Amino acid sequence: MRIRTLGSREFAWVLMGALVGMGPLWAQGDNLLPQPAKTARQEGRLAIAGSFRVGLQGYVEPRLRAAGIRMVDRLAQQTGIPMDSAPLTDPAQATLVVRCDHAGEAVQSLREDESYRLEITSRQARLEAATPVGVLRGMETFLQSVRLDRDGFGVPAMTIDDKPRFPWRGLMIDVSRRWIPLPIILRNLDAMAAVKLNVLHWHLTDDQGFRVESLRFPKLHQMGSDGFYYTQQEIRDVVAYARERGIRVVPEFDVPGHITSWLVGYPELASRPGPYTVDRALGIRDPALDPTRDEVYTFLDAFIGEMVQLFPDEYFHIGGDEVTGRDWRENPRIQGFMREHGMKDHRDLQAYFNQRLLPILQKYGRKMVGWDEILHPDLPKDIVVHSWRGQRSLAEAARHGYMGILSTGYYLDLMQPASLHYGVDPLGDGAAGLSESEQARILGGEACVWTENIDMENIDAADWPRSAAMAERLWSPAQVKDVDSMYRRLEVVSRQLEWMGLTHRSSSRLMLERLAGDGDPATLRRLAGALAPLNCDVRRRVHPYTSLTPLNRLVDAIPPESDAAREFDHLVEHWPANQAKIREQLSQWKQVGAEVAQLVHGSALLQEDVPVAASVSAVAEAGLQALDYLEHAKPAPKAWVAEQTALLDRAGKPQAEMWIVIVPSVRKLLQAAEAGK
Amino acid sequence: MRIRTLGSREFAWVLMGALVGMGPLWAQGDNLLPQPAKTARQEGRLAIAGSFRVGLQGYVEPRLRAAGIRMVDRLAQQTGIPMDSAPLTDPAQATLVVRCDHAGEAVQSLREDESYRLEITSRQARLEAATPVGVLRGMETFLQSVRLDRDGFGVPAMTIDDKPRFPWRGLMIDVSRRWIPLPIILRNLDAMAAVKLNVLHWHLTDDQGFRVESLRFPKLHQMGSDGFYYTQQEIRDVVAYARERGIRVVPEFDVPGHITSWLVGYPELASRPGPYTVDRALGIRDPALDPTRDEVYTFLDAFIGEMVQLFPDEYFHIGGDEVTGRDWRENPRIQGFMREHGMKDHRDLQAYFNQRLLPILQKYGRKMVGWDEILHPDLPKDIVVHSWRGQRSLAEAARHGYMGILSTGYYLDLMQPASLHYGVDPLGDGAAGLSESEQARILGGEACVWTENIDMENIDAADWPRSAAMAERLWSPAQVKDVDSMYRRLEVVSRQLEWMGLTHRSSSRLMLERLAGDGDPATLRRLAGALAPLNCDVRRRVHPYTSLTPLNRLVDAIPPESDAAREFDHLVEHWPANQAKIREQLSQWKQVGAEVAQLVHGSALLQEDVPVAASVSAVAEAGLQALDYLEHAKPAPKAWVAEQTALLDRAGKPQAEMWIVIVPSVRKLLQAAEAGK
Repeated sequence: MRIRTLGSREFAWVLMGALVGMGPLWAQGDNLLPQPAKTARQEGRLAIAGSFRVGLQGYVEPRLRAAGIRMVDRLAQQTGIPMDSAPLTDPAQATLVVRCDHAGEAVQSLREDESYRLEITSRQARLEAATPVGVLRGMETFLQSVRLDRDGFGVPAMTIDDKPRFPWRGLMIDVSRRWIPLPIILRNLDAMAAVKLNVLHWHLTDDQGFRVESLRFPKLHQMGSDGFYYTQQEIRDVVAYARERGIRVVPEFDVPGHITSWLVGYPELASRPGPYTVDRALGIRDPALDPTRDEVYTFLDAFIGEMVQLFPDEYFHIGGDEVTGRDWRENPRIQGFMREHGMKDHRDLQAYFNQRLLPILQKYGRKMVGWDEILHPDLPKDIVVHSWRGQRSLAEAARHGYMGILSTGYYLDLMQPASLHYGVDPLGDGAAGLSESEQARILGGEACVWTENIDMENIDAADWPRSAAMAERLWSPAQVKDVDSMYRRLEVVSRQLEWMGLTHRSSSRLMLERLAGDGDPATLRRLAGALAPLNCDVRRRVHPYTSLTPLNRLVDAIPPESDAAREFDHLVEHWPANQAKIREQLSQWKQVGAEVAQLVHGSALLQEDVPVAASVSAVAEAGLQALDYLEHAKPAPKAWVAEQTALLDRAGKPQAEMWIVIVPSVRKLLQAAEAGK
Repeated sequence: MRIRTLGSREFAWVLMGALVGMGPLWAQGDNLLPQPAKTARQEGRLAIAGSFRVGLQGYVEPRLRAAGIRMVDRLAQQTGIPMDSAPLTDPAQATLVVRCDHAGEAVQSLREDESYRLEITSRQARLEAATPVGVLRGMETFLQSVRLDRDGFGVPAMTIDDKPRFPWRGLMIDVSRRWIPLPIILRNLDAMAAVKLNVLHWHLTDDQGFRVESLRFPKLHQMGSDGFYYTQQEIRDVVAYARERGIRVVPEFDVPGHITSWLVGYPELASRPGPYTVDRALGIRDPALDPTRDEVYTFLDAFIGEMVQLFPDEYFHIGGDEVTGRDWRENPRIQGFMREHGMKDHRDLQAYFNQRLLPILQKYGRKMVGWDEILHPDLPKDIVVHSWRGQRSLAEAARHGYMGILSTGYYLDLMQPASLHYGVDPLGDGAAGLSESEQARILGGEACVWTENIDMENIDAADWPRSAAMAERLWSPAQVKDVDSMYRRLEVVSRQLEWMGLTHRSSSRLMLERLAGDGDPATLRRLAGALAPLNCDVRRRVHPYTSLTPLNRLVDAIPPESDAAREFDHLVEHWPANQAKIREQLSQWKQVGAEVAQLVHGSALLQEDVPVAASVSAVAEAGLQALDYLEHAKPAPKAWVAEQTALLDRAGKPQAEMWIVIVPSVRKLLQAAEAGK
């Protein structure tokens, strides 16, 4: 089968299909994700039974003891076998002996040693690490190694020497545009730890909400949050919970733009007169702090002084993105200030603002992180540039001596397949020509989930399991990039995450049940398999979203990536071996049109999906007809091909803010039918 | 189709099939469960939108305000529409006006007024109740009334006048044999409130574990719990959480038998010398308190004095069941005491024990509840007899002036269909001949979940949704007993419970995924549809269970009742209309034999299920062959019928502690094929 003209969205899918030399999805094999730096397999296996115990040797601290208990509890849950989780001090009795060398950093930093060595024989397992964080990483590897096979639960005998490729491996969660309650943050930390991510970047404030209790400036959370904020005790709990799991918490307080929620309580900080209200609109807004007034820095000094008590991390994210400059341009006093200081545009004024912010951070022992826009020659070399503009801008910064982290290509709200994120390497593309020392300045990356079109119901599905693919990119050696293998292991991790309480699968089921009203949700699950949501940027262009718009439509309920569609594409790629399965799957999709037309009588929410389901049916019907031609080994008539191609072209366009993602696969069948083979 | 000889288990299923005049499962209609005492429908509907607000009128207290917030939060979740949950004081603005007349009892009792009136028009809804508990009940009714239809979310215009039939509607949870963590208790309280159950009977101690922190006698929880117990603060939290939901908490401290866990720390209370260890074995055990020693009563006095501080309910459950008397018989000093007091057997000694216990309870203002065995003419009439022996023994007690509650027929661990429990009426059977005042002594009933073969993973599935069927029996008028309607509404409630965090469905999925190892769990989901677990009593006879035995087998993962099998039976009952569907379902079941034979290579846990799956395949094949005969409208040959009947007889026997529950339905097909129609 040859591939012909395809649109760009289709291209991503086809590319993926081509990369995916998918073996059977449930094949036996190594389930580790991220893959360790070095693994040597030996003969035999260590059986896991109810007698499993952890023993602690060498340096011991409460964090290690808690980790040992947690690990055995999870193992007991994973296997369904009751176990005694209290760590032993006598290693002779232990199934897994943990030896930690010394204490870790008082405040975990970029430089923390995360390496470990795991030796598993048929008699015992041994985990050695310099620091408690290394032990935590090794425990996750051990848990991932446990498999059920024909002999019961066990771990294959092997020796693993492991350490991360990049020291900064993050997940950014935006809790401002939509409120994300505490338990969701905690379970995301559990999931992060499971795949060895080590930075929670917490986007705590934006135009739509100020989410931290401030005792110093209480009107910030009282007037800027609709009552949805984390108390200081809750923040401390999250930071402690993260530390227990070897995760740093980097707070972001976005300044001088993205600031409306601050100005509700403190309009005197603004560049134009108030009053302000919490902003329900989304997109880039004009309000900004007034960088020309000393009171603003006094305020920030006191505020940051309060926040650093809550957030011990050495880095402090100041945002700094998307300042429009309009409120500065329209304020004559600010314009005068700019002329006086010889500033030619708002970028110069923002640089001035950052330069005044910097000594405040330094006073509190903090280093600055900010988005691309903060990069300015006047800033010192220990700032970290967080790139949303791409690897080239990151490489450029590195060449000028700045450290950087990548988020371009890692935006979860763009609803792209895991394979696409997986293919993005912080040292790829523009960074290829960097010297070794310049490369070392590229610290890693962060998956980002912006919550314009994501809320507490579907955030887990936005984050997981796709973040795990990025986690492998950032932890494992660069040459680990087999997409087939990644997807196989991602499925295993995805299941394990549900045991940990993540709702990335279960919540989609519930949302589809809601959409079905009193009807049968099985139809919607089948339909969902043929669909993917549009990326949030595009959605906002076609629908007037606010931060209060209900996210209860089909586009909100379906997962970002359809496993069914990926598996279907794999079947098509290996036609004719899978003829019967392809036919079965297409027949199911063919039915959804009529079924949804029925369901809609009991569900107003499905109205917009009736034509979508009809399109899916038509696409499936085209595929079935193509199969008929292929099975009779005669080329399809030109007129039929033209008609069906037009149909696929129409079906390939977004409807109800979704793509029909099986279109490229059916197009392949069509092309094969046209060629008669 | 006529039904012929069937075994007793089969009979239950067939009976159910016969009762179930099932309309389409997803039919439109009233979703209320339990059904209100009186409902009058009017024209029109009240639309539910983001502007929904609750207003509070009349008597207001924090419990009502919290209930208002919780209700709107749940409505927002149910609809996916963001809402402002803060209650209004100006009713003009409110969508739902709540008017409460006066405060409820300081400690909710049997006599609390739970009635309410709900009036819904197309403009506004009005909920009136004498007490906050009545308001809570009405709010649940309102939430259940909200439906998605072709016009969006709304509530039909209607007037409901509602009050319960029985004042004691409980769920008993055994947390001793297997540890049930706090969050599970809390979410079960949420579920109870949703279906208007009003008593959590908390079976806190037994041979296998003592689950409450005692400051007075700390060796009770320290030595008797393996570290798994609720702190006093947690107990207080549960009691407060329950009160917020209109639920009483009745603690059970089972004495004088079922006592081993107490004796680990305090062997001096026992009837035979120690030392004792926490008992891992299940079933009826011999250890008992020594009723002849004053120190035992001194201990109980101090202990109960401590516990009544935690549990304010007027009733205190003292268990009292299953005393074997062996340890009393084998202790010469106790034998001497019995002779001295003219006691002829251990029942007399237990009555003596209860008579000495009674004034202790009375001193603390508590009334005694105990299982059947406590009934004795010397006890006062304000005790409550908790019947596990049946309606006749309950009626007998009522005739003698005792109050009683029923649990016979409500044991969830017997793994019977909801329809069976639904058919059990506390005033049915033996109670039929009681006078009105005698009937009034029958206070209600309790669903019971004993945890010999149930643990934290599958307890939700044991409890829900079947408890909801019992809740209707206890709340709604006696004439509400349409099984078809009950199952339809049970499905709706079951979905709603998952939104509330109950895991009765999701946990089964996860457990099946675990069983599948790296294999495809879809096969096991199909297989599960043909199966039901044996009842726990029977399981313990065929397998040497202890309280530490892993519950990770197929029998533990499948739900107590198969929806698929019930729906299949319905299809068969309405053959030939459903011919194609019956064939499709049987074809799927036919495949599971080969599929599980494949899966077992990657899962030792499935070994015992290979023959089960093979039997299911064979049963399905028999059904398919019967269909062939039926479709050709010719009587099946006698030899074939005999052979298949023998096959079904074999397949109807338990395997791997499960039943193949589609056997009765296939038997019907066989009988029809034999008759040629």
